[in-house]
Amino acid sequence: MSSEWGKKLHISIFGESHGEGIGMVLDGLPPGEAIDFEELRRFTSRRAPGKDKTSTPRRETDKPHFLSGLLEGVTTGAPVCAILLNENTRSGDYQKMQSLARPGHADYTGFLRYKGYNDIRGGGHFSGRLTAPLVLAGGIARQLLARRGVTVGAHLLCCGAERDRPFDPVSLTERELLLAGERPFPTLSEESERRMRETIEKARLSLDSVGGIVECGALGLPAGIGDPMFGGVENVLSSLLFGIPALKGLEFGEGFGAALISGSENNDPFYMDGETVRTRTNHHGGILGGITSGMPLVLRAAFKPTPSIAREQQTVDYRAKTDALLSVQGRHDPCLAVRAVPCVEAAVSLGLLELLL
Amino acid sequence: MSSEWGKKLHISIFGESHGEGIGMVLDGLPPGEAIDFEELRRFTSRRAPGKDKTSTPRRETDKPHFLSGLLEGVTTGAPVCAILLNENTRSGDYQKMQSLARPGHADYTGFLRYKGYNDIRGGGHFSGRLTAPLVLAGGIARQLLARRGVTVGAHLLCCGAERDRPFDPVSLTERELLLAGERPFPTLSEESERRMRETIEKARLSLDSVGGIVECGALGLPAGIGDPMFGGVENVLSSLLFGIPALKGLEFGEGFGAALISGSENNDPFYMDGETVRTRTNHHGGILGGITSGMPLVLRAAFKPTPSIAREQQTVDYRAKTDALLSVQGRHDPCLAVRAVPCVEAAVSLGLLELLL
Amino acid sequence: MSSEWGKKLHISIFGESHGEGIGMVLDGLPPGEAIDFEELRRFTSRRAPGKDKTSTPRRETDKPHFLSGLLEGVTTGAPVCAILLNENTRSGDYQKMQSLARPGHADYTGFLRYKGYNDIRGGGHFSGRLTAPLVLAGGIARQLLARRGVTVGAHLLCCGAERDRPFDPVSLTERELLLAGERPFPTLSEESERRMRETIEKARLSLDSVGGIVECGALGLPAGIGDPMFGGVENVLSSLLFGIPALKGLEFGEGFGAALISGSENNDPFYMDGETVRTRTNHHGGILGGITSGMPLVLRAAFKPTPSIAREQQTVDYRAKTDALLSVQGRHDPCLAVRAVPCVEAAVSLGLLELLL
Amino acid sequence: MSSEWGKKLHISIFGESHGEGIGMVLDGLPPGEAIDFEELRRFTSRRAPGKDKTSTPRRETDKPHFLSGLLEGVTTGAPVCAILLNENTRSGDYQKMQSLARPGHADYTGFLRYKGYNDIRGGGHFSGRLTAPLVLAGGIARQLLARRGVTVGAHLLCCGAERDRPFDPVSLTERELLLAGERPFPTLSEESERRMRETIEKARLSLDSVGGIVECGALGLPAGIGDPMFGGVENVLSSLLFGIPALKGLEFGEGFGAALISGSENNDPFYMDGETVRTRTNHHGGILGGITSGMPLVLRAAFKPTPSIAREQQTVDYRAKTDALLSVQGRHDPCLAVRAVPCVEAAVSLGLLELLL
Repeated sequence: MSSEWGKKLHISIFGESHGEGIGMVLDGLPPGEAIDFEELRRFTSRRAPGKDKTSTPRRETDKPHFLSGLLEGVTTGAPVCAILLNENTRSGDYQKMQSLARPGHADYTGFLRYKGYNDIRGGGHFSGRLTAPLVLAGGIARQLLARRGVTVGAHLLCCGAERDRPFDPVSLTERELLLAGERPFPTLSEESERRMRETIEKARLSLDSVGGIVECGALGLPAGIGDPMFGGVENVLSSLLFGIPALKGLEFGEGFGAALISGSENNDPFYMDGETVRTRTNHHGGILGGITSGMPLVLRAAFKPTPSIAREQQTVDYRAKTDALLSVQGRHDPCLAVRAVPCVEAAVSLGLLELLL
Repeated sequence: MSSEWGKKLHISIFGESHGEGIGMVLDGLPPGEAIDFEELRRFTSRRAPGKDKTSTPRRETDKPHFLSGLLEGVTTGAPVCAILLNENTRSGDYQKMQSLARPGHADYTGFLRYKGYNDIRGGGHFSGRLTAPLVLAGGIARQLLARRGVTVGAHLLCCGAERDRPFDPVSLTERELLLAGERPFPTLSEESERRMRETIEKARLSLDSVGGIVECGALGLPAGIGDPMFGGVENVLSSLLFGIPALKGLEFGEGFGAALISGSENNDPFYMDGETVRTRTNHHGGILGGITSGMPLVLRAAFKPTPSIAREQQTVDYRAKTDALLSVQGRHDPCLAVRAVPCVEAAVSLGLLELLL
Repeated sequence: MSSEWGKKLHISIFGESHGEGIGMVLDGLPPGEAIDFEELRRFTSRRAPGKDKTSTPRRETDKPHFLSGLLEGVTTGAPVCAILLNENTRSGDYQKMQSLARPGHADYTGFLRYKGYNDIRGGGHFSGRLTAPLVLAGGIARQLLARRGVTVGAHLLCCGAERDRPFDPVSLTERELLLAGERPFPTLSEESERRMRETIEKARLSLDSVGGIVECGALGLPAGIGDPMFGGVENVLSSLLFGIPALKGLEFGEGFGAALISGSENNDPFYMDGETVRTRTNHHGGILGGITSGMPLVLRAAFKPTPSIAREQQTVDYRAKTDALLSVQGRHDPCLAVRAVPCVEAAVSLGLLELLL
Repeated sequence: MSSEWGKKLHISIFGESHGEGIGMVLDGLPPGEAIDFEELRRFTSRRAPGKDKTSTPRRETDKPHFLSGLLEGVTTGAPVCAILLNENTRSGDYQKMQSLARPGHADYTGFLRYKGYNDIRGGGHFSGRLTAPLVLAGGIARQLLARRGVTVGAHLLCCGAERDRPFDPVSLTERELLLAGERPFPTLSEESERRMRETIEKARLSLDSVGGIVECGALGLPAGIGDPMFGGVENVLSSLLFGIPALKGLEFGEGFGAALISGSENNDPFYMDGETVRTRTNHHGGILGGITSGMPLVLRAAFKPTPSIAREQQTVDYRAKTDALLSVQGRHDPCLAVRAVPCVEAAVSLGLLELLL
């Protein structure tokens, strides 16, 4: 199975980059939840392309059309289906690469998996465009979480060698959590934005691209959510997050850094803060044994550089089975991690809502 | 749901550290597969405690008792149930910590999740001991994979600041892949073993512990396995791997490193190697778009230091809601990442078999 | 979860009777399967309303709009989404019954389940109209089955007290199996058609309705498909079939009749028919131990009479919590079992394809 | 997948009739539920063989051994594993039928499905003996339901042509519901018992067997439980119930009878009974649109006659591919429907608990 996920909250994503339309079905939402469409538009617009030079010039209105599950803007409890029609597609760009595998892309593996029948225009079902329905579904989940006191936010922690200030995992505030989402560029600091924009522009001008790391946090999660073993918060979130194209690494709390330090450093001392159990540090990232501790949830997701670059690259023609050279034309973000920030928030929101329901 | 996983191959793990027994049910194995019990014993013994000073002195024979699914050592196609009886438990050690939360452990979160009814003796269902049935199931899966030409192996890449030589993701050999598993300590180099043993011993003597990173590879996977979006190889493996206690980070191929380099560096050029499509580098770790490329699969899993340390730590009594001090007694590995090596191999084997079936 | 089903082949159905549209996402179809749209139209038109006096006068073109998963009429392997826009809805009819529970309907139970937020216009998500996307998905599955040598067909075995000739479970032919689907009324015999039409017309004229039994068969299924216990053919099919509104009973092979006869009568003697194992009788309906035997698959599904009848009925106002009287207006089939015939074929086709993949 | 079921409450059943042992893992039980082992023993003993001439003379203590998930008889929230060791097996009886397909059994279909590797001794994983862990799990579920005010009970409604008095679906009492389970033979009336025992004894003496129908009811279910379409109460229960060997038909409420009557007869008029919405009749069997109405749940399950009969039958040797004659030796119930009564209660209890959690 490819594009469906979830037990209590179930999402099914469909569509291909240059097909008629893309969309999602979200089943299991509680009835009686009012959707704030203006807030949803704000959230999804953070992923939308074409805003400035950091992203692909492909412009799409990406206005969702809700077919079901809502009555006067309120969930009925039946599955919500929303579709986005594909406009402004320029399939011509992709004609000449019919069977040239773009390095770093799923062209070759998709060809094998689907025996050559997959729609390769614009990456087809593998396209980053498929994150639009994910962000739409996640945006709905995020509103339901907010109503339950849970706030999810993210920012671009790293872009190449440049680094934003990290979330403080102990005293993270809602304001800090939501800050990057309200800025024109998803960093916490203006200085990071300036340097990251330079990095991206430099990559773009050299017909290249750059990777990045998204840091995501959640506040307000009740302690005691999740299950041991395969039902842990990490398992649930990772099974969703790795569905975002180009995500190649994921860590919770101290993550890979925990391997370098000693137990006495990494263990977070518990203490009573009035009636509440808290920890003085938060290397555990809000999860112990797969279950929330009540401390802020913190995770980081690493994104590879956009594989579509205009430079000439060595590749193969996978039908002709010959070596070849390729310069990827078309319109591509020089740093897909920028627009991945709301994607991470969306996936985390869906996962947390599944765990909370 | 906590302790069950899988669609075509389904595993259900049960048991608590100091209960009567632990075990697993593995459903969906093809019929007619002979199990090599001696090989299985060798594999599971790599996880077994009590071998030397790098692990807990708790000794267990961990001899599995197969109740079903095998007839004269060959799978019947019906579910395989194997149990391990708990012996040599010393629950007394845990008496005094009845409601003191061990920092870095799931005592407090488990208390909340299970409303105080969970068996906390030895960590109960959260105990690292529950990896024994996982390794048993994975050991069976690993044999079925080997029969299909797929080899899975891992080693301890990092232990604190010490580092083993990494797998070469392009020209990884079966010999290299299996090397650490055949050595008394799971590194590729003897020099790394010496230095890591020193690091661990130093931690032990200072009543502390140390973390580590396990690198795992797989050779022989056919290209074209996996699905896009939520059915990708990364999604499937991560949903299992985060079930191993203390695992806090996971990366595939270049992983977090990919965020630091440019697209022109990270993209792996394709070329024809005779009739086979290969890549000259392997930053993608054998997975593109969630689907295997035919190049070696490479992933790394970060483990936090063993949270149980003998040093006095600040904590709370979560029933009395008071601050407290705690020195964890009992028998614990100073570096759980050592014994995590076969756990990672087991989880990866189960995941890959699910994808292959 | 309500409206999604399946493991290898996954279907998600969405929509409400008088909302913007209904549809389905079908994930897991193999790539490279050409869809015969004309054949699909013929199949779905068998369910479409408005053909004659046996069904509701509501007319709908029910022309599906495929958004994804097909390229030039051939499956790509990505999820297929098809939508049907709702036209010709007359919500006014339902205004006055805002909180009067129609006897035999899900108005009251839906009100409770969805806390009053469900869309009750036309039955909302509970409407028989939601079988349109089911039939569409099943029509696709049916074509893939046909390509694999499996034929699925059904007929109206009973309508009230009238009875069509039953399928011969031993020597069922493809011609007999498909016969009812090609006739204007879904019986095998013209005489049954005549008598059933009379029964239905009589019910209609007396402002009443009548129930029926659909018999469904499948030929060409390979022997050895299915699993024991919860993975049996009966389990898989029943979990789908009970999703068809108004279906209240289901039996395989001899079914309820088997309770009345002796083992020596009910056991089907095996014999060799050349190289093929067959049974002389087929009380087992082609399934033994949940697994296909190679004999024709035969099942029967009982449908209750259409609950919407124009006669005055006692009911309650479930908001006001008062007794009330109700005459259901609107347009309704006097015998929904007629149009249920292709619904049963569709559900059986989806279930068998899931089992075969 | 064969032998696992469920989403929130998950059951995995393992074992083969003449293997080392059988058992089940039940995952998802809430923590803090005390198990009444004496009550559990009473319940499982209703399924146990060897009590009198209506069942097989094979005697088994069937004392379950709980390995996990319980601490001092109270659920911990971790998976409960219980095993039953196989004793008193007489595999010799089955030696001569090594490849003779017993008519009405899964010998031949199991041979195909498992490519000849399945354990055929005593029916292996297809044996009715595998209902023992189902009844054990269901017995636990039944206690949890009782604590939530839900009572599940069943009786043998038909045995061949003999008929017990049916449950009154409108005014069913808890006393009537539990009556058959407390009697030595599972009927409501002593007269039915007498006649059914005669029927069974007659079948036994003529080396034959007889089928039966089990009627099951549930009281106390809150209204509003279940989901539309594939998540309905009927879907959930049927996907479990068809896992009971020899079950060939299933109906809810009026079931097949509804096909024969008119809508005005079948529709159940709603009325206010004080503050409670009830229906005057209960042809809907407590389920409307897949969702509970608050009226008693009533279903009937048809069981075929025991296929193992001592009479000589025609069959085939499925390895040699030749015709053959067979008289089934061994010990078999002349009417398996008698012992199926608690099996139905168990499956219904598991399904209802899944729906309630």
